[in-house]
Amino acid sequence: MVARSQPTRARSPQAKRVREAAILDAAARLATADGIRAVTLTDIATAVGMHKSAMLRYFETREEIFLRLAGAGWAEWSREVRRRLAHAVPGAAGEDPAVETAALLAESLVARPLFCDLLAHTPMNLERNVSTKAVRSFKLTAVAEAGAVGAALRRVVPLSPPQAGDVVATATAMAGALWQMAAPGTELRRFYESDPALAHAVVDVAPRLTGILTALLRGYGATRMVSRPPRQKRPDEVETAE
Amino acid sequence: MVARSQPTRARSPQAKRVREAAILDAAARLATADGIRAVTLTDIATAVGMHKSAMLRYFETREEIFLRLAGAGWAEWSREVRRRLAHAVPGAAGEDPAVETAALLAESLVARPLFCDLLAHTPMNLERNVSTKAVRSFKLTAVAEAGAVGAALRRVVPLSPPQAGDVVATATAMAGALWQMAAPGTELRRFYESDPALAHAVVDVAPRLTGILTALLRGYGATRMVSRPPRQKRPDEVETAE
Repeated sequence: MVARSQPTRARSPQAKRVREAAILDAAARLATADGIRAVTLTDIATAVGMHKSAMLRYFETREEIFLRLAGAGWAEWSREVRRRLAHAVPGAAGEDPAVETAALLAESLVARPLFCDLLAHTPMNLERNVSTKAVRSFKLTAVAEAGAVGAALRRVVPLSPPQAGDVVATATAMAGALWQMAAPGTELRRFYESDPALAHAVVDVAPRLTGILTALLRGYGATRMVSRPPRQKRPDEVETAE
Repeated sequence: MVARSQPTRARSPQAKRVREAAILDAAARLATADGIRAVTLTDIATAVGMHKSAMLRYFETREEIFLRLAGAGWAEWSREVRRRLAHAVPGAAGEDPAVETAALLAESLVARPLFCDLLAHTPMNLERNVSTKAVRSFKLTAVAEAGAVGAALRRVVPLSPPQAGDVVATATAMAGALWQMAAPGTELRRFYESDPALAHAVVDVAPRLTGILTALLRGYGATRMVSRPPRQKRPDEVETAE
């Protein structure tokens, strides 16, 4: 590598991490405001006060930046869902554990609009214009976090591992798809709402997703709390049922 | 409008319809081969043997072309599902009506790879770069066809209208999302399959979608055939149960 002198270059590993975090923060801020689709590499460079060419030393493409945010989004959502499931005792208040679990999943996703946008963009766009190293790193994170959420679900409601995987896949994929259909804050949404023939087709993500996930959990027989140890219980698993 | 003389311009309404159909056919062929994402307006113009500027008299943007294909895809899929549901007697062979209905939906979608690709692209990209007239026309078609499939489902398995709507929405949105994740025939798919840490995460769309839709139908209580008239049966509805 040729040594170049440039005042804006971060020299130490720590300075590089700070710069990288600033790029990711700027991209997240812009995408939250305008949607991922609208944000260019130039927009991000401008927001973070770097030359585009300098930014390319940190991330090769805009897709790589958003794929990193998608990985971080999976980790953050997974942590929150597992935290809430660990404290929850579904059915304890006499309510339907399927409804409670579905609402927890749906609401935690809807509360993260950028993650919903990323979930729809990831398989279609973000994995397609990055190095295999970047795809691999993202994919391993997403698979591990989806697995962790699935395992946490299984401690609360009785599901097989593939069923838990399908609940997580449906929750995240439908959150992404319904979020795009709902198109909150966009011209498209305002057009839908203004047209009497289309207004009834406007999607309200949280209740719609809660309903679908409730039925899915019921269909898998997850209508009661876990009251017996799962067949292959690991030592680190904790029953949340009293 | 200024009268211009151009040898390639279609003059009669019928000639215009023929030209329009040729553009749509070329776009469908290219997108089936390479995926919607890769197909540009120039590719389509080249394939159909027109100048790009001449093609813009028929469709304003590439998104408008694909949105028209998405509308046609909804109509064609809806017709096929309704035809098969009209002939089906779920549960007649002693099988689970939820499984049979789910498999019919999943397989009819997977058999239409271009429609699956369109389903994922529509809310995210295709509705965003077209006139409100084009969005409105597509949306009315999609809403009507989704409603027709929902009504046909309700003649076979007991579902409320909103439940039937959610089954259709989940079937089509998950088909779109899982198709993008599976990425069949792409570099991405070959990379997944070649990596031992990722190979197990490769999505097989038809069985995965069948499993999810089976659970959803069961969760809505659709585990038996319709054996009593729906509450608000319309005169044109026909029971398929014997």
